[in-house]
Amino acid sequence: MRAAVAGASGYAGGELLRLLLGHPEFEIGALTAASSAGSRLGAHQPHLPQLADRVIDDTTADVLAGHDVVFLALPHGHSGAVAAQLAELGEDTVVVDCGADHRLADPAAWQEFYGGEHAGTWPYGLPELPGQRDVLKGARRIAVPGCYPTSVLLALTPAFAAGLAGPDVVVVAASGTSGAGKSLKPHLLGSEVIGSVSAYGVGGVHRHTPEMEQGLSAVAGTPVRVSFTPTLAPMSRGILATCTAPAAPGVTRESLRAAYESALRDEPFVRLLPEGVWPATSMTYGANTAALQVTLDTRADRVVAVIAIDNLTKGTAGGALQSVNLALGLPEELGLPTTGVAP
Amino acid sequence: MRAAVAGASGYAGGELLRLLLGHPEFEIGALTAASSAGSRLGAHQPHLPQLADRVIDDTTADVLAGHDVVFLALPHGHSGAVAAQLAELGEDTVVVDCGADHRLADPAAWQEFYGGEHAGTWPYGLPELPGQRDVLKGARRIAVPGCYPTSVLLALTPAFAAGLAGPDVVVVAASGTSGAGKSLKPHLLGSEVIGSVSAYGVGGVHRHTPEMEQGLSAVAGTPVRVSFTPTLAPMSRGILATCTAPAAPGVTRESLRAAYESALRDEPFVRLLPEGVWPATSMTYGANTAALQVTLDTRADRVVAVIAIDNLTKGTAGGALQSVNLALGLPEELGLPTTGVAP
Amino acid sequence: MRAAVAGASGYAGGELLRLLLGHPEFEIGALTAASSAGSRLGAHQPHLPQLADRVIDDTTADVLAGHDVVFLALPHGHSGAVAAQLAELGEDTVVVDCGADHRLADPAAWQEFYGGEHAGTWPYGLPELPGQRDVLKGARRIAVPGCYPTSVLLALTPAFAAGLAGPDVVVVAASGTSGAGKSLKPHLLGSEVIGSVSAYGVGGVHRHTPEMEQGLSAVAGTPVRVSFTPTLAPMSRGILATCTAPAAPGVTRESLRAAYESALRDEPFVRLLPEGVWPATSMTYGANTAALQVTLDTRADRVVAVIAIDNLTKGTAGGALQSVNLALGLPEELGLPTTGVAP
Amino acid sequence: MRAAVAGASGYAGGELLRLLLGHPEFEIGALTAASSAGSRLGAHQPHLPQLADRVIDDTTADVLAGHDVVFLALPHGHSGAVAAQLAELGEDTVVVDCGADHRLADPAAWQEFYGGEHAGTWPYGLPELPGQRDVLKGARRIAVPGCYPTSVLLALTPAFAAGLAGPDVVVVAASGTSGAGKSLKPHLLGSEVIGSVSAYGVGGVHRHTPEMEQGLSAVAGTPVRVSFTPTLAPMSRGILATCTAPAAPGVTRESLRAAYESALRDEPFVRLLPEGVWPATSMTYGANTAALQVTLDTRADRVVAVIAIDNLTKGTAGGALQSVNLALGLPEELGLPTTGVAP
Repeated sequence: MRAAVAGASGYAGGELLRLLLGHPEFEIGALTAASSAGSRLGAHQPHLPQLADRVIDDTTADVLAGHDVVFLALPHGHSGAVAAQLAELGEDTVVVDCGADHRLADPAAWQEFYGGEHAGTWPYGLPELPGQRDVLKGARRIAVPGCYPTSVLLALTPAFAAGLAGPDVVVVAASGTSGAGKSLKPHLLGSEVIGSVSAYGVGGVHRHTPEMEQGLSAVAGTPVRVSFTPTLAPMSRGILATCTAPAAPGVTRESLRAAYESALRDEPFVRLLPEGVWPATSMTYGANTAALQVTLDTRADRVVAVIAIDNLTKGTAGGALQSVNLALGLPEELGLPTTGVAP
Repeated sequence: MRAAVAGASGYAGGELLRLLLGHPEFEIGALTAASSAGSRLGAHQPHLPQLADRVIDDTTADVLAGHDVVFLALPHGHSGAVAAQLAELGEDTVVVDCGADHRLADPAAWQEFYGGEHAGTWPYGLPELPGQRDVLKGARRIAVPGCYPTSVLLALTPAFAAGLAGPDVVVVAASGTSGAGKSLKPHLLGSEVIGSVSAYGVGGVHRHTPEMEQGLSAVAGTPVRVSFTPTLAPMSRGILATCTAPAAPGVTRESLRAAYESALRDEPFVRLLPEGVWPATSMTYGANTAALQVTLDTRADRVVAVIAIDNLTKGTAGGALQSVNLALGLPEELGLPTTGVAP
Repeated sequence: MRAAVAGASGYAGGELLRLLLGHPEFEIGALTAASSAGSRLGAHQPHLPQLADRVIDDTTADVLAGHDVVFLALPHGHSGAVAAQLAELGEDTVVVDCGADHRLADPAAWQEFYGGEHAGTWPYGLPELPGQRDVLKGARRIAVPGCYPTSVLLALTPAFAAGLAGPDVVVVAASGTSGAGKSLKPHLLGSEVIGSVSAYGVGGVHRHTPEMEQGLSAVAGTPVRVSFTPTLAPMSRGILATCTAPAAPGVTRESLRAAYESALRDEPFVRLLPEGVWPATSMTYGANTAALQVTLDTRADRVVAVIAIDNLTKGTAGGALQSVNLALGLPEELGLPTTGVAP
Repeated sequence: MRAAVAGASGYAGGELLRLLLGHPEFEIGALTAASSAGSRLGAHQPHLPQLADRVIDDTTADVLAGHDVVFLALPHGHSGAVAAQLAELGEDTVVVDCGADHRLADPAAWQEFYGGEHAGTWPYGLPELPGQRDVLKGARRIAVPGCYPTSVLLALTPAFAAGLAGPDVVVVAASGTSGAGKSLKPHLLGSEVIGSVSAYGVGGVHRHTPEMEQGLSAVAGTPVRVSFTPTLAPMSRGILATCTAPAAPGVTRESLRAAYESALRDEPFVRLLPEGVWPATSMTYGANTAALQVTLDTRADRVVAVIAIDNLTKGTAGGALQSVNLALGLPEELGLPTTGVAP
C-alpha cells in the first residue's frame, strides 16, 4: 500500500515517515509541503537517510491522489481545505488528519478555540476509547487526537468509565518542544527552552481543552470540565500529564487499581506500571506506548493518574498509524514500536 | 558578621556560600560537612574559586560556635540534633535551619511524614506571609521553608488572604534536579534525567504537603487541603508550580488581579508579571525573585496561579538570607540578587 | 537463535536488548547481572515493557551456557574472566565482548592503560575496516570496539587508506553521558552535567587512545599517534568526534571527497553527508548509522573529518549485532535500525 | 557614569545590562535596538525586572549621545556604521564594539571572512594579553574579542609567550546556543539542539579563525595557524575549548605548568585549576572567569590546554566591562562577578 504524507518537512511528518519506513505494509509515495516544496527531504529530516534524496512536492490534491492512505500533517485550518479537495477523488483512500480540523463535534467549540468555519467531524482516532475500535474498523476518514488529549483520555478513561471520578478535572502537563512544531518563534529557541520550564495557554484557553472535555464527557456520560495547564519542558519529545479528579464516594486505592487493571489488561500499547513506579517520559521515547500509574490521594480525596507518552509517536504519528491499521483491517500493532529508546 | 555553613559541600550549602560572598555584611567562617570533612571546598564547589582552598571541618558544635549566624544545610533529622547542641552555646547566635526539622507545628504531621521525634517549631522564614516580617525581626531561630512550599505559598497567599479561593487546592510542580540534592541515586544520573520529565512522591505522600497545608490554612483561616504532585524536569535549577483552587463565588479576573496587585505592590522579590505573560524558570535563575501570574479559568471555575522560582535561591539559600537580614535588623533586600542569569 | 546478555541492567545491556527485540532471528535467553541479580528487568530498563517481568540471574557460565550468542556487557576485567569460563563450554557459541578486554593486540598497552593481565585478542568487530568482514564471517569470538574508537576509525580510515593524511592525528570528541555507564559518581549526576560541557581523561591517558592508534596504524601501514581529548556533553546519547590529521602533499578537497565517496559507496551504515552539511548527533539517535563529513582546511593544511554516531547503538550494541550478523552468516544489516529518532 | 546599550534586546545586550545593574559606577541610560524599538525591555529580557518598563529606542547617534560609555552589541557590519556616526560626537565617550567590526588589523582578512569594507582597528579588549592593559588604560575605543578567540587566547598565550608551543594549533570548541544569538534559524530551535551536538563552520571558514591567528601570532612572534572547529552543544551558555599545539623541544609537564602558574599568578579572572582537575563550563556560568588546565600529552607530543568560559560573560559582556574599567581608570575587577552559578 502507498502512503502520502502532506507536511513532510515538519516534526509530525518526519515521525510519520520514520514509522512508515518501519511498517511492513507501506511504501512511501508523495511527500509534500508548503514553503519547503522543491527541496530534498534530507535537508529537513536528516535522520531519515533512506529518503534523503526525495524531492518534496507542493501540497495539492493531484499530487496526493492515487494513494491508499494520505496523512495530513498540516497546520489547523489547512487540513480541512485539503481534505475538501481530496473528497472529490473518491472514497477508497483513507485520509488521516493529524491536525485539529476534524476532531471536535461541536462547531461552536471550534469557532471559539480555533476560529473560522468548522470543517466537520471525523471518526476519532483513539482506539482505546470504549467502542472506538469498532468505529475505526473500515473507516476512511480519521481525526487523529491532539497529543495532550491523547494523554489525558488514556489516563482518565478507566476511572470515568468505572464511575470512580467526579467531573472537576485538573490537568497539568509538561511537553517537549517538538509539540510546538518547527515554527520559528523566539520562545522556542534552544537558548530559551534549555534549562527552563514555562507555562503557556493557561486559564482554559488552550485549544486542546474542549477536545479533552468532549472525550471525557462521552466516557463519563455526564459533562466533565477540565482545568488544563500546559507547560513547556527542556526536552525535545515527550508528554507527562498529571491528571486529577475528585474521587467518587467509596473509592479505595484497591478498587481504583482494579478498575485500571481490568480496563488495560488487553491494551497493547497502554501499560499500567507496577505499584509504586511512576511514569517518566523516557520510558516511551520513540515508542507508541503509554506508561501509566494511578493512585488515590486519600488526604485530598482525589484520583491522581500520571501518564507518559511520546507526543510525536503515540501522541501523533504512531497513534495515527495504529488507527490506520484498524481502518485497513491490518493487525492493530503492526509496524509500531513498543520499545522506547533509553537512556 | 561571621557566618558558618554546615553542609558546605552540598547544593544548598554551595548556594549559601555563593550568596554570602556577595553580601556586604558577612564574612565566611567555618565550613563543615559530614563525609567530605577534611577535603577542600574547591573539590565540591568549583564555581566558588574564592573559597577553593578552604578546608571543610566536621560538623560539631565546637566548630560552629563563635559565629553570628549558623546556617544548617543538612539532611532532615540532622539539623535538629545539631541545633540541640548549639542551644547550649547561648542565645545570641542566629541559627537557620535550611532543612525540614523545625518547619511543622504539628508533631503528628512530622511523625507521619518524616518519622522520629519532632525537633520543635521555629519562626517560619517566609517574610511574604501576612505578619511574618514582624515575627522574623529579631528572631534567633529560623526555619527556612521547603522549596515547593515557598513557591506554593507565594502563589496562593494573595488569593486566600482575600478570600477568593476555596480549600481544594491542586498543585503540580516541576523541579530541577538540584532539588533532590547531591545524593548518588540512579534516577538522578544525567543519563536518566536528561530528555525526561518524571513524577514522584504522588498521592499525598510528598513531605512538603503538610507544610503547604499548614501555611495555606493559616492564611485562609480554615483548613486547606492540597493535592500535590511533584515532577522532576531536565534542568538543574528552578521550580515551576501550577497552583489551582476553586474560585470563590463572584470572583472575576479583574478582582483576582486586583487582589494580587494589591498584595504584591510592595514585595521586593515577588513580581506579578504583566497580563498575558506567564512565568518561566529562566526568569529567576540564580535570583532571589519569584515570577508570578494568575488568572481565572472561567470554564473550570478555578483560580490558576503559576509561579517560577529558583529552588536553590528564593527556594532555599536566598530565602534564608532574606530572613536573616530581617532577624539582624539589616535591610531585607541586602546582598540578594534580583537579576536572573539568562538565557 | 537464542541470545544471552550479561550485564543486562546497564546501558549497553539495555541497548542490546532493545535491538535484539527488533531482530527477526533472535529470541532473548538469559539475562544476567551482578548487583542487580534477583530483581526484575523492568526495574532497570523500564523502556522495554516486553521484558519487564524477566528476572535477572547471576552472571555465571552455567546460566550463560546453551545460547547461540552470548553478549558480555560488563566492566573491563570482568568479561575476560567470564569468557575464560565460557571457553570450556565449547566452540559453537558466539561470544561477544562489548567491553575492552579483548580489543588490544599489545599486552603492554593493556597493562599500561588498564592494568592486570591481558585476556587476549579477539577479532575486532568493526566490519568497515579494510578486510575485516572476511575476518568476522564465521568468527566465534568478537571484540566490540570502544565507542570513541568506532567513531574515529570510521572517520579517518578512508583518508589513511588512500594515503591522504599524515600520522599526527588530533581528535576531540563529545560524548553523551550514557558513555560513562550507570555508575553512581557525583560528576555524572544530572545536576552536574545538565548545562555543562567538561573535559576528562586529557593528555593521552584515556583508555581508548591505544585502540585508536592500533586501528589507524594498521590502516595507514605506519605508526599513527593520536592526541585524544574526550568531553562530556549534556545529552544522554551520541558522540560527535572531530578528527584532524595533516594533509598529505597534493591533497585537494576534491581528491579527498572522492576518496571518501569511493570508500563509503557500499557501506550500509556509514553515510557521507552532502557537501556543506555537517553532522549532528541527532541524525543518528538510536540508529546503527554514522553521519560523516570531511573537508580540507587549506589554511591549516589539515584533513578535518567530523562524525556522529550513537554511542550505544553503532558505538556498542548495534555494532556488536552487525558483527554477529556476519559471524552467523546472516545479512549484515538484518534487524538493525537505520532511521534515527529525531527531533 | 551613564552607559548606553545598543542591541539591548539581544543576548549580548541582555548580559551587558545584567552586569551594569550590578556595577557600582554605572547607571543605565539609553537602550536601543532595531526591530524591537518601541517595545518594552521586559518583553525581551524578563530576567531583568528592574528594567522591565524601559522603552527601547531606535539605534541612532542622537539617542546614543550624551553617555560616558556606549556599548554596541550589534550584528557585524552595523557597529562600524554606528561607530562612524558616533565619531562626530566627540572623543570623550568610550565606545565599545562587542561585534566583530574593529577586531582585525588586516583589511584583507576582514574582506575574506566578513566581506564589505573594513571599519578599522580598535584597541583589542583582552587585558590578559601581554602589554594589553597599558593599551586599554585611557582608551576611548575598544574592540571586544570574539567569544571563541577569548577562550583560545587565554588558553594558549602562556604557552606561546614562554616559547613552549609550536605554530600548528588545533582547536575544537563547544559553545552553548546563546553564542549564535537570538536569530530565528531552524537549526537553533530547542527541538533541534536539545540532545544533540553538531559541528558547523568547519575547515577554516569560521570568522573567528583569523582573529585567533592574529592574537596568537602576536604573542608567539611568528605566524601561528589554527585549525578551528566549532561545535554547538545543548546548553544555553558556556564555551569549552580544547586547544592543542606541538610541544617545543624539551618541554616537560613540570616546565609547562610552571609557565602557566607564572603567567596566571596575578590574573584576577583566569584560574589555573589544581592538577588533575579539568574544566567544566558550569564552573564559570554567569561569571567573568576562566577555568583553565594544561598538560603535556607525552604520547602525541602536544601541549593540550582546555579552558571553560561563559561566552556571554567573560566571552562578551564581562570582558567588555573589564576593559571599560581599565579605560576609565576604575579597578579592573569592579562590579564583575567571580562566582559562577552552579549547579
